[in-house]
Amino acid sequence: MKLLRINHLGIASPGLDDAMARMERLFGRSADHIEEVPDQKVKTAFYAVGESHLEWLESTDPEGPIGKFLSKRGPGIHHICFEVDDIDAACAELNAKGVKMIDATPREGAHGCRVAFIHPSEMGGVLVELSQSGKSHA
Amino acid sequence: MKLLRINHLGIASPGLDDAMARMERLFGRSADHIEEVPDQKVKTAFYAVGESHLEWLESTDPEGPIGKFLSKRGPGIHHICFEVDDIDAACAELNAKGVKMIDATPREGAHGCRVAFIHPSEMGGVLVELSQSGKSHA
Repeated sequence: MKLLRINHLGIASPGLDDAMARMERLFGRSADHIEEVPDQKVKTAFYAVGESHLEWLESTDPEGPIGKFLSKRGPGIHHICFEVDDIDAACAELNAKGVKMIDATPREGAHGCRVAFIHPSEMGGVLVELSQSGKSHA
Repeated sequence: MKLLRINHLGIASPGLDDAMARMERLFGRSADHIEEVPDQKVKTAFYAVGESHLEWLESTDPEGPIGKFLSKRGPGIHHICFEVDDIDAACAELNAKGVKMIDATPREGAHGCRVAFIHPSEMGGVLVELSQSGKSHA
């Protein structure tokens, strides 16, 4: 599979107000987009940086994935998302190699993307998301 | 200041052999470039992804920055580097705001870049490097 770009970096934060105040103070930036994703139990704030985004993540439930991450590891970078051109082929390739996946097959993500997570044990402690954008698979 | 792109992500690894084997297994990729940076007490392996790089970091000294990070937090993403067009202006701006810097003024980095690190306490636990490429300031 070809990694086309870093689609986004997910950063776990105790609160979006805090994250947004930091982005404003350090870089004079306000969020491009704010969205709640009930399915993932997060509220997110997006900032474009070149061809990538920073995606700050606030937990809306201590039992959700970001809530658990925050209580275990504290705030910081939670995952990296690579854009691929064909996520079905990418998942099939990884499954065939016996790579441990969180999502063996793609599921629906935000913005009409299709996504799949690779288990962090496969990438030296880094949680990796693969994403295929909605546009390129219309 | 304007963040032009994610220049690279620094990922702390117990060893480059391990990191490179993972990149080969998961993505069929070999490193674009391997370099030892004695000053930072690391060996690094670079992989281009779109306009960014992954920079895997192996510690060559347990007392170096990556050695300490690994013993404290374990392997994973260590820092994010943003490219800026004018790093002197960026540092001056951050200093004027009272932002806590690891490098109050830029220093020489790899590949003829000039770099400065912002203290992670300013960015919600994320260590941020700013970099101005050597080329754009010839």
